[in-house]
Amino acid sequence: MILAKVLDSVVSTSKDSSFIGKAIFVVQPLDEKMNPSGNTFLAFDHVQAGPGDTVIICREGNGCRQLWGLDQAPVNAVITGIVDQIENNY
Amino acid sequence: MILAKVLDSVVSTSKDSSFIGKAIFVVQPLDEKMNPSGNTFLAFDHVQAGPGDTVIICREGNGCRQLWGLDQAPVNAVITGIVDQIENNY
Amino acid sequence: MILAKVLDSVVSTSKDSSFIGKAIFVVQPLDEKMNPSGNTFLAFDHVQAGPGDTVIICREGNGCRQLWGLDQAPVNAVITGIVDQIENNY
Amino acid sequence: MILAKVLDSVVSTSKDSSFIGKAIFVVQPLDEKMNPSGNTFLAFDHVQAGPGDTVIICREGNGCRQLWGLDQAPVNAVITGIVDQIENNY
Amino acid sequence: MILAKVLDSVVSTSKDSSFIGKAIFVVQPLDEKMNPSGNTFLAFDHVQAGPGDTVIICREGNGCRQLWGLDQAPVNAVITGIVDQIENNY
Repeated sequence: MILAKVLDSVVSTSKDSSFIGKAIFVVQPLDEKMNPSGNTFLAFDHVQAGPGDTVIICREGNGCRQLWGLDQAPVNAVITGIVDQIENNY
Repeated sequence: MILAKVLDSVVSTSKDSSFIGKAIFVVQPLDEKMNPSGNTFLAFDHVQAGPGDTVIICREGNGCRQLWGLDQAPVNAVITGIVDQIENNY
Repeated sequence: MILAKVLDSVVSTSKDSSFIGKAIFVVQPLDEKMNPSGNTFLAFDHVQAGPGDTVIICREGNGCRQLWGLDQAPVNAVITGIVDQIENNY
Repeated sequence: MILAKVLDSVVSTSKDSSFIGKAIFVVQPLDEKMNPSGNTFLAFDHVQAGPGDTVIICREGNGCRQLWGLDQAPVNAVITGIVDQIENNY
Repeated sequence: MILAKVLDSVVSTSKDSSFIGKAIFVVQPLDEKMNPSGNTFLAFDHVQAGPGDTVIICREGNGCRQLWGLDQAPVNAVITGIVDQIENNY
């Protein structure tokens, strides 16, 4: 899983039927200091996140399909949590 | 999933039988500002995309095979949507 | 699998139900000389590790779900061992 | 999938039994202009490719095992097509 | 699969039970000229390799678990062959 910030939403009308009614966001990976780190990519929302939120993202196909209750869907990234805080206990 | 632009098509006669009749494109990953970002790779088309289109691509094997209705195929990238617009609501 | 150092813990209240009661840490990949190498990411703890520990991390979805005894969970990184020592026998 | 050029062949006598009788090649990923791009890796041959050929490679474990008719084999890259031509229709 | 050199061994006492009795090595990926290329990572041994050996490594979870005869183990990299020679027939 990685930390990321939600940026923009993607609008697509010609798409696989499994995508209908799902919010797709452009997300920016973050490092441990909340600085941008690496390339942006696309993720589906599972926790009512929105642009500006810092989130936990899981990039893995089987886990994504399970969240949707679908056996079949071409997805491999999903927003699974909204981050409240990073605690440095070290 | 990632954003990408469809570039060229690949012509191959000696190939695995599961590839017959499928369009394979060279695609260029894009960042959130639609600038090229990272290395090009190959993807199959599932939504009648063509060169010049901005698309959503899923890079994961199981999801690709499911789209084809095939249990067995050596594929791991498929074009699953054509992007109309990126909305910056932030 | 990779070597990593455990850094911070992540606090999230709005999240997938499979995450409840699990510790999520920000981890920093290390090279063979224990220097930081590559981008930080998030991992769940399976071996009672804590901030400051050098650990073994497995980044793969199916292995993570099996450790939890869950068939379904959007996870793909887990701390599977605490490193005592790296032995250079070469 | 990616474009790559076949470079050298790998000779190994002490190896997993599933590898016996299979050709393993060092391959160099290529970009859309056929220039080297990224690190070399190893791939098995499925289409009678040889050194110097430009090929399509699929890097994914399940797809590789299926091509061999094996349920179990530690493989994750296979040459699945020989490229005749890249067509720029854009 | 990739080429790599075996470097050091990892000592861990607090670890997942599936790791007990398995040798874990730090490995350095190599390019086609046997020069270091990319970040080191950890791999289990399946072919009696040792520090200094040039080896073939498969990074994929299902293939690793199959080699062990385990349905469940948080592993995703295994040494599957010792390289005798790289032949440049091109």
